[in-house]
Amino acid sequence: MRKLALLLFFFWSVSASAQNFTEDSLFIKRISNNILSSDEAYNNLWYLCKKIGARLSGSPQMVKAEKWGLETFKKYGANAWLQECMVPHWVRGGRDTATATYTINGKKQTLPLHVLALGNSMGTGAKGVRAEVITVKSYEDLEAKKDQLKGKIVFYDVPFDDTLINPFEAYGKYAGYRGTGASRAAKYGAVAVMVRSMSNSTDNYPHTGSLRYLDSIPKIPAVAIGLRDVKKLSDLMSSGTSVSAFIQTNGKFFPDTIGHNVIAELKGSEFPDQYITIGGHLDSWDPAEGAHDDGAGCVHTIEVFRALKELGYQPKHSIRFVLFANEENGLRGGTKYAEEAKAKGEKHIFALESDEGGFTPRGFGLSVNDTAWNKIQQWKTLFESYHVYEWKRGGGGADIGPLARNLNTPVAGFIPDAQRYFDYHHAANDVFEAVNIRELKLGAINIAALIYMIDKYGLQ
Amino acid sequence: MRKLALLLFFFWSVSASAQNFTEDSLFIKRISNNILSSDEAYNNLWYLCKKIGARLSGSPQMVKAEKWGLETFKKYGANAWLQECMVPHWVRGGRDTATATYTINGKKQTLPLHVLALGNSMGTGAKGVRAEVITVKSYEDLEAKKDQLKGKIVFYDVPFDDTLINPFEAYGKYAGYRGTGASRAAKYGAVAVMVRSMSNSTDNYPHTGSLRYLDSIPKIPAVAIGLRDVKKLSDLMSSGTSVSAFIQTNGKFFPDTIGHNVIAELKGSEFPDQYITIGGHLDSWDPAEGAHDDGAGCVHTIEVFRALKELGYQPKHSIRFVLFANEENGLRGGTKYAEEAKAKGEKHIFALESDEGGFTPRGFGLSVNDTAWNKIQQWKTLFESYHVYEWKRGGGGADIGPLARNLNTPVAGFIPDAQRYFDYHHAANDVFEAVNIRELKLGAINIAALIYMIDKYGLQ
Repeated sequence: MRKLALLLFFFWSVSASAQNFTEDSLFIKRISNNILSSDEAYNNLWYLCKKIGARLSGSPQMVKAEKWGLETFKKYGANAWLQECMVPHWVRGGRDTATATYTINGKKQTLPLHVLALGNSMGTGAKGVRAEVITVKSYEDLEAKKDQLKGKIVFYDVPFDDTLINPFEAYGKYAGYRGTGASRAAKYGAVAVMVRSMSNSTDNYPHTGSLRYLDSIPKIPAVAIGLRDVKKLSDLMSSGTSVSAFIQTNGKFFPDTIGHNVIAELKGSEFPDQYITIGGHLDSWDPAEGAHDDGAGCVHTIEVFRALKELGYQPKHSIRFVLFANEENGLRGGTKYAEEAKAKGEKHIFALESDEGGFTPRGFGLSVNDTAWNKIQQWKTLFESYHVYEWKRGGGGADIGPLARNLNTPVAGFIPDAQRYFDYHHAANDVFEAVNIRELKLGAINIAALIYMIDKYGLQ
Repeated sequence: MRKLALLLFFFWSVSASAQNFTEDSLFIKRISNNILSSDEAYNNLWYLCKKIGARLSGSPQMVKAEKWGLETFKKYGANAWLQECMVPHWVRGGRDTATATYTINGKKQTLPLHVLALGNSMGTGAKGVRAEVITVKSYEDLEAKKDQLKGKIVFYDVPFDDTLINPFEAYGKYAGYRGTGASRAAKYGAVAVMVRSMSNSTDNYPHTGSLRYLDSIPKIPAVAIGLRDVKKLSDLMSSGTSVSAFIQTNGKFFPDTIGHNVIAELKGSEFPDQYITIGGHLDSWDPAEGAHDDGAGCVHTIEVFRALKELGYQPKHSIRFVLFANEENGLRGGTKYAEEAKAKGEKHIFALESDEGGFTPRGFGLSVNDTAWNKIQQWKTLFESYHVYEWKRGGGGADIGPLARNLNTPVAGFIPDAQRYFDYHHAANDVFEAVNIRELKLGAINIAALIYMIDKYGLQ
């Protein structure tokens, strides 16, 4: 009898759960139809890219972007506000230039290099820096050559590994050279560094990104070079030709200034004190429009709000939609958000970030415990109709990292297709036109679907 | 004892098969490294697009393309040849133009329409056609309005359903209007038709494609309109404004001419008389470079050959690599290929076509029996490292359709991501620049991997 009861309970729960998923599938289809039939996502991206443009923390455009984000949320009926935080204020200060010069058959040659100063780097000043170039193939190679670096410009010629299927892996392997390569070379007396753009593109756009000077080491200038010029320079250096380079950059820091996270909230009906966060970052590097990085993530966030609101969705938990203030060169927005959450004793049950571009959706990376993981695995088929198949353990986003670290919040990252991301990442071609309208919308649909399922069923 | 033997056999087969798949995984990684480290695929696409360009059957460019295909296969060490077939020879004959005129507040207005005559359509002649426009929303609507069509230009204003997740489904629902809409309207006395471009793009490029006149019905001119102009025209018509249109096109047929399939072959070591075919089609519509449709499929085909040859792969079955002569407006290449195969009594155990563009790979559609399907399902994890998760029952390609129908060959279609395909399909923006190098290469890798597995393990 007990066995029979268990069996009956089993069938009841299976059929109950099947029943629920059918309803869920229908609601997700409503989300999908709403988003695919609307022009709002694409128009919002257009406005952010074309009317506001590049928006590094501390810039006047970032102030405009905050205002636009707040007004856009309110236009869609949100309870929305700004959350103040101090942000770094670095400026490029002018056009970055560089040339390589060398002598072949007694004739002096000049190779112009397409470069961008790395974010947070100190400029050379008006006079620029001129010095002999020395190639370094790895940090091991740097250490081996440490006695030869004094007075030189170090060229980190470390290839981005094109044979890795996921370009984020190549980025992960190489990003350290951009991050601390300057300080590590300066330690041995180098006067500037040049790094390969972190991209597997076929064009010559240089790709910037943030550098971090290590304490008590001289702060030397640093630039990223476009890949076609990297190839030329690399070939020259390999041929044994003696090359000197001239670099002129103008980067400088102003004092920290006030920035804001833009936050909208849908109040929960059952668990108003439990929060789900979804976000992207509003700041973007200065040479481009920040379309994929991270206009797309901001538009995803706004679009999920818009669609859920328009469909009259009443969440059980409170859902926060956040455009973070400062991902690129400081992480002050995400840090502030988690600090305030902790100070107020808020319970954050889940957070998701979209910061890998507006490409066709592939899946989600989840840093959650086994219970949550197993629960989410039961929802997989709901997402297959939307071509989402990839569920990875591990993942999140820079801005929600502080929530994960300091409040132990389970976090996730939205995973769009990654093949084109580094063609645009931190480069001048990261513009509105690089984003496909359907790919962008499908991202919002799948994020909305996951948020909806987690809100409805919880994670534990 | 028998149970034990069975059990032991079970473990043996599982471990044997696991062992084999490890080797396979390593070989597929070698294919991947070879293709991702090579510039050949991209250079080939560049040459086909930029140096040869549009290549409709019967055109001088198609002759160049055949020569290039043959030479490229031979350059990579192939036994390659041309297979002759008769192909249709339609020409556009000049620039297609159209305008809509209407009167608002007593003032005559002119709306220029971006149009392309449909492939295979008869031109209007130099004088053009001018007539009142009547909107038709479906074939049911056409039948309902049949008494009003005489002397009119029929505008098929049937929306491409953007809410369908897979744009190929929308295409499937709508393609009939392009195919036979002209004849069905002409039957009731219409003098020309205009169809919506079959696309969910946000631009105004008109998208051509083939039309088929039904016997014994007058052959009237037909054009496709760019989507922004469709919107304007549709709004005008909905407002009740009386609109007349002027269309001038120059399409005509010349007598059938000689074309060729380009075929390369790797001879099988164990089953030389059993064939596996992989192909794409070399012909492309005249307004563009045919980059995604189907330069990508041709480059995939050539690249799979190049990589397998360079890796010294000795297939068990004979593998044929085919650039088909005439997919767009006749299917004569695929028909000839199957005819000759049948005449020679060849056994074709599998055929795969790549004709959905050079986008990031998603999976394969398979028209195979249960045995083959179950076998292939066991290989799925091998493909997940390459982000291929979608295995669908059903699928193939137009050029290998005759093999499936007449020789009962199991067939498959390569499925890349479909979201951007109809932005470019049969339109002037289907150019080299629309193809991403990594997405293109990943397609070749996954196709090569599937062909390798089928060659090694067979399908039965």
